[in-house]
Amino acid sequence: MSYEPKRADFSVPVRINLYSDTQTRPSPAMKEAMMAAEVGDEQGGSDPTVWELCDRTAALLGKEAAMFMPSGTMCNQVALATHCRPGDEILAHEDAHIQSSEAGGPGAISGVMIRGLPGARGIFSADTLRDAIRPVSRYAPAQRLVEVEQTANKGGGACWPIGDLKAVADVAHQHGMKVHMDGARVLNAAVALGVAAADVVADCDTVWLDFTKGLGAPLGAVLAGPGDFIGEAWRWKQRLGGSMRQGGMNAAACIYALQHNVARLAEDHANAAGLAHGMAQIPGIVVEMPETNMVFFDTKGAGLTAAELAARLRPLGVTISVSGSYRGRACTHLDVTAAQIEEAVAIMRSVIAA
Amino acid sequence: MSYEPKRADFSVPVRINLYSDTQTRPSPAMKEAMMAAEVGDEQGGSDPTVWELCDRTAALLGKEAAMFMPSGTMCNQVALATHCRPGDEILAHEDAHIQSSEAGGPGAISGVMIRGLPGARGIFSADTLRDAIRPVSRYAPAQRLVEVEQTANKGGGACWPIGDLKAVADVAHQHGMKVHMDGARVLNAAVALGVAAADVVADCDTVWLDFTKGLGAPLGAVLAGPGDFIGEAWRWKQRLGGSMRQGGMNAAACIYALQHNVARLAEDHANAAGLAHGMAQIPGIVVEMPETNMVFFDTKGAGLTAAELAARLRPLGVTISVSGSYRGRACTHLDVTAAQIEEAVAIMRSVIAA
Amino acid sequence: MSYEPKRADFSVPVRINLYSDTQTRPSPAMKEAMMAAEVGDEQGGSDPTVWELCDRTAALLGKEAAMFMPSGTMCNQVALATHCRPGDEILAHEDAHIQSSEAGGPGAISGVMIRGLPGARGIFSADTLRDAIRPVSRYAPAQRLVEVEQTANKGGGACWPIGDLKAVADVAHQHGMKVHMDGARVLNAAVALGVAAADVVADCDTVWLDFTKGLGAPLGAVLAGPGDFIGEAWRWKQRLGGSMRQGGMNAAACIYALQHNVARLAEDHANAAGLAHGMAQIPGIVVEMPETNMVFFDTKGAGLTAAELAARLRPLGVTISVSGSYRGRACTHLDVTAAQIEEAVAIMRSVIAA
Amino acid sequence: MSYEPKRADFSVPVRINLYSDTQTRPSPAMKEAMMAAEVGDEQGGSDPTVWELCDRTAALLGKEAAMFMPSGTMCNQVALATHCRPGDEILAHEDAHIQSSEAGGPGAISGVMIRGLPGARGIFSADTLRDAIRPVSRYAPAQRLVEVEQTANKGGGACWPIGDLKAVADVAHQHGMKVHMDGARVLNAAVALGVAAADVVADCDTVWLDFTKGLGAPLGAVLAGPGDFIGEAWRWKQRLGGSMRQGGMNAAACIYALQHNVARLAEDHANAAGLAHGMAQIPGIVVEMPETNMVFFDTKGAGLTAAELAARLRPLGVTISVSGSYRGRACTHLDVTAAQIEEAVAIMRSVIAA
Repeated sequence: MSYEPKRADFSVPVRINLYSDTQTRPSPAMKEAMMAAEVGDEQGGSDPTVWELCDRTAALLGKEAAMFMPSGTMCNQVALATHCRPGDEILAHEDAHIQSSEAGGPGAISGVMIRGLPGARGIFSADTLRDAIRPVSRYAPAQRLVEVEQTANKGGGACWPIGDLKAVADVAHQHGMKVHMDGARVLNAAVALGVAAADVVADCDTVWLDFTKGLGAPLGAVLAGPGDFIGEAWRWKQRLGGSMRQGGMNAAACIYALQHNVARLAEDHANAAGLAHGMAQIPGIVVEMPETNMVFFDTKGAGLTAAELAARLRPLGVTISVSGSYRGRACTHLDVTAAQIEEAVAIMRSVIAA
Repeated sequence: MSYEPKRADFSVPVRINLYSDTQTRPSPAMKEAMMAAEVGDEQGGSDPTVWELCDRTAALLGKEAAMFMPSGTMCNQVALATHCRPGDEILAHEDAHIQSSEAGGPGAISGVMIRGLPGARGIFSADTLRDAIRPVSRYAPAQRLVEVEQTANKGGGACWPIGDLKAVADVAHQHGMKVHMDGARVLNAAVALGVAAADVVADCDTVWLDFTKGLGAPLGAVLAGPGDFIGEAWRWKQRLGGSMRQGGMNAAACIYALQHNVARLAEDHANAAGLAHGMAQIPGIVVEMPETNMVFFDTKGAGLTAAELAARLRPLGVTISVSGSYRGRACTHLDVTAAQIEEAVAIMRSVIAA
Repeated sequence: MSYEPKRADFSVPVRINLYSDTQTRPSPAMKEAMMAAEVGDEQGGSDPTVWELCDRTAALLGKEAAMFMPSGTMCNQVALATHCRPGDEILAHEDAHIQSSEAGGPGAISGVMIRGLPGARGIFSADTLRDAIRPVSRYAPAQRLVEVEQTANKGGGACWPIGDLKAVADVAHQHGMKVHMDGARVLNAAVALGVAAADVVADCDTVWLDFTKGLGAPLGAVLAGPGDFIGEAWRWKQRLGGSMRQGGMNAAACIYALQHNVARLAEDHANAAGLAHGMAQIPGIVVEMPETNMVFFDTKGAGLTAAELAARLRPLGVTISVSGSYRGRACTHLDVTAAQIEEAVAIMRSVIAA
Repeated sequence: MSYEPKRADFSVPVRINLYSDTQTRPSPAMKEAMMAAEVGDEQGGSDPTVWELCDRTAALLGKEAAMFMPSGTMCNQVALATHCRPGDEILAHEDAHIQSSEAGGPGAISGVMIRGLPGARGIFSADTLRDAIRPVSRYAPAQRLVEVEQTANKGGGACWPIGDLKAVADVAHQHGMKVHMDGARVLNAAVALGVAAADVVADCDTVWLDFTKGLGAPLGAVLAGPGDFIGEAWRWKQRLGGSMRQGGMNAAACIYALQHNVARLAEDHANAAGLAHGMAQIPGIVVEMPETNMVFFDTKGAGLTAAELAARLRPLGVTISVSGSYRGRACTHLDVTAAQIEEAVAIMRSVIAA
């Protein structure tokens, strides 16, 4: 079984990339920052730019310490492995990224299982969590960690309301569990909720932030938490091969992103709203109204699958992603303008009418 | 954290044990069979009685080969580890024993995660299974195995109907997955359904049978399946420490059980039905009508928790088990007579009235 | 690949079993003790005979607590998993049973690696251990545990001298490591050294004792150590499927063995010495002089491999085991008499002469 | 326990970095190549520069396929996990990087153990390997993989002679094992041996190449092997979090390194030889003559530990690394000139004389 990706067809350029906010390209100004970065040996503690990035992110998130890693998946895997012991159980939404989209890493690397909790838009309630807690026994796996995703990807980019998150975290902490946030798009949530990032994550023991989504950096994510947690997590980073050498150039791109690309996430949200309203007027398309930068929609009424719609858009330079037989996703980000959103709607309308 | 069991209070004898069918004691006749057993070195292939047990069980279940192990939990753990690779996903009912009651073994030993499926009485439908199957990708864990429990313990001892099981197995096989049955009480199902055991398990690739529940043997379970599967599974048995030395005495008890204690499971089912009807007439108790030998009931209407009821019954020589705040379980087996069932109902009635 | 054992050829009886002390059969008196045992549900804490065995073994070994398991391999796997975390390193002799003979369990179950230490007769020195200790770092695996084997099986059944063992344990403890003893044959060592078992194991944090070797019970081993260690180890016992139901009958055989079969190990040692002296006079055979009950010998001078010698002895009712191309092993135990030893030597002599 | 690196003291600049060839900094020309790189989404198959790097490296090493990862440690971990199953045994030199320096990853991630083989300068013979091979059995771990390190780091940067490597690989293949090369510095070996890289690795099934050592790139390593192996390895890359987004800039630095920094490794070797000769003349220092770019030396005769020497050199702007109490290492690379080597020798001489 080959899991290697297929080589993209580079002959037909992508003009309007709604496939994912992970596909943004570093801007010239970001690249200038990379060129100017002072570097050292990151895994030896001598790269000043990596330290700066860690310090800035820890401060932004209101946590004691932070560490730089090549990807958000590694942040999740390292956090889970540091929090848990083999045989433990993690409580998370049944559609969580760690269950469905990290190649079974929680089982393979940490030896843990996930108990999936139901809930609309990727969010579960404190009551649902409470009902899933079992008495401690020789038979039941130890329930060690509650995991939340902010924003909830498969939940349509929905934001956990601060109060709901606090209620869930309170239940977790009362039962001796820690709370970990997959904060891949936590800054989208902060901007959408109009709340400081540190307040959004205040109830979580650990959290990470991805720089390669709406923030537009080419590589990297930062995991933050208590100092002793980060100290122990470094061993897992080393073990998984996440230590980098001259990480400073990549870190410089992330610092640039923190400085220039956070507030502007509001534009992506406005574009997503515009896209949703435009698509909602296409006959046969049913749109889930977006809270942040992701527009999920149903194509069934239009008589074609999401994959068929994607296949028809691609030769016209527009990409979307497929989330289910009739469920598609369009994602806005800093490489898509409001004008392109309008154009994309027009193209979709014509393709569906055809 | 200590997971050692508390020493039982041996000063107050248990007269009517409804706690579990795992607590039966070997009868004098079974012990005679143990004494008479020819033995050898089981892990070296020289114990004839162990071979006889394996042959008999394989024949009973219509499978090519079988192996003897100290417990049903080990049968599950060895089967999962042999079927799967680290990072795989198993599809099972959300109340499955392997999720909730094997100390997280599937994660710790096999490195797999379980995707819990909903369904009444511990049974899920072929449609529910089909909806949970994802396209193969680099991101999704490989879906390798479907697991079913026959009878479904937390489902109230419910039997999977043969047709429903076949439909589920067909979906699994169409998607390249294997089907494993936790058959701890599969002979209860066979007796209750009035179907040959081999027909009950025909659609499952692997299955195990516990001899320490209704069958009344002191130790042991047998895992059956294709010859090459059992050949590979032996390595995991060895690795987990499941190879025994002179296993023949314990195997002889299991052979005795196959010869004498299968058909009589119908008595346990009749006793369970009697118990259910008796308890249903106790004010405040709501009973789930049993299909086999387990009676689950709700104590809320009686104004006491299941644990409180258990605590009041214990000094009177009656034991039950606790399955939830207000959910209790009473289990019938070959050490409980019809007269004792009547007595137990009377005791419960008086205790609740008090 | 099938790891299932081949079925023994039951048509040619084994009269003189020098293959292994694991192949002893329960005596009539031991079986009487089993029949008379009071039993309960071992994993629920209600089997009084299992508790008695644990208490007696803990007292014998001078440890706080103990637990009963189906095999010595499981004792090792549970102990390693409880002592260690994934990624840790264990320091043990390069010929240790846990490295070569437990199917890779330490890696598969505990996620640990073993650093093999050299040393004559299965014993390594405190200096060798000290040289293998690395500074703590982000890169080096954590060195968590030192493991010793008493007696050292592949070392020819050699006994660790008490002083040497203390020196090794001191180095381990000074570096924050625990010491675990694979005491499969620790009572052979105690008898051979003329020292109380508790004194033999005093420097080890945890130790287990096998009842199915020279002690002659059909099944079981007991792991002993500090109370909190045993409390935690129970979770791994449960997870691996090592909890038994009515374990009391098997435990009764072990109690019988403690009462009747310990002092007599001296006979096995005398028989091994007799065997060694007899075999040493067979032309072409070079014998390693035994310290306990195992005689290792080299067949090269006799012009045949160990496997060839074994194959020629088998039809004559004598079995030995093969440890290398030209290295064979003969093991004495309570099912072999001094007269049979003489007979076995005579048979070997004639077979080799042929 | 914190494994976080200490922050370097940036106030005293390092002028002559002999600590490690991992600490080279990207040159202005390399950075220009990075700026000019075309990028896409690496884990989605749409980054053309990453594909180019993989194709070039596969061709250089004569393998069918290749994949880009953030580090050499991840290349090892992914290769081991793809080759092996939990419980397998890997045969490698007892000083192998995977045993001592990857935080126990082989155990933690792949569930494998390593059997350490002895041999001078980090190299073992075909006979040593053959002696370590056991018969296949239910008890022995499966011996799945032989691992070699080219050049052997703790062996002083020694090169495996092609013939010796072929002999070892032949034994491995005859016994059904694969051969994996940790080729962190395989191009140093190719240059030192005067042999094409593809010929150096021809007998190995899989091999990886580090771009952050003598080649001078800031991040990345490439694992190469058969197409189906790489296809399967991608799942582990994804699982460990090794997929990158816009990997093209980092890949461009690696391509630049292949184009400009390979042949010049000969200069590093010449500098190492010069350093060794210079240091050999310092009273009290005993030097191991280098084959490539690493100079190991013993400080005992000079009356100070390697750590003490390092501590005295650091304030003078010179860094070395510590490999044992009295064993130090100095490493040459593209950021150290012949003139600096002379200066470093002079500084060492004066420091030691002091």
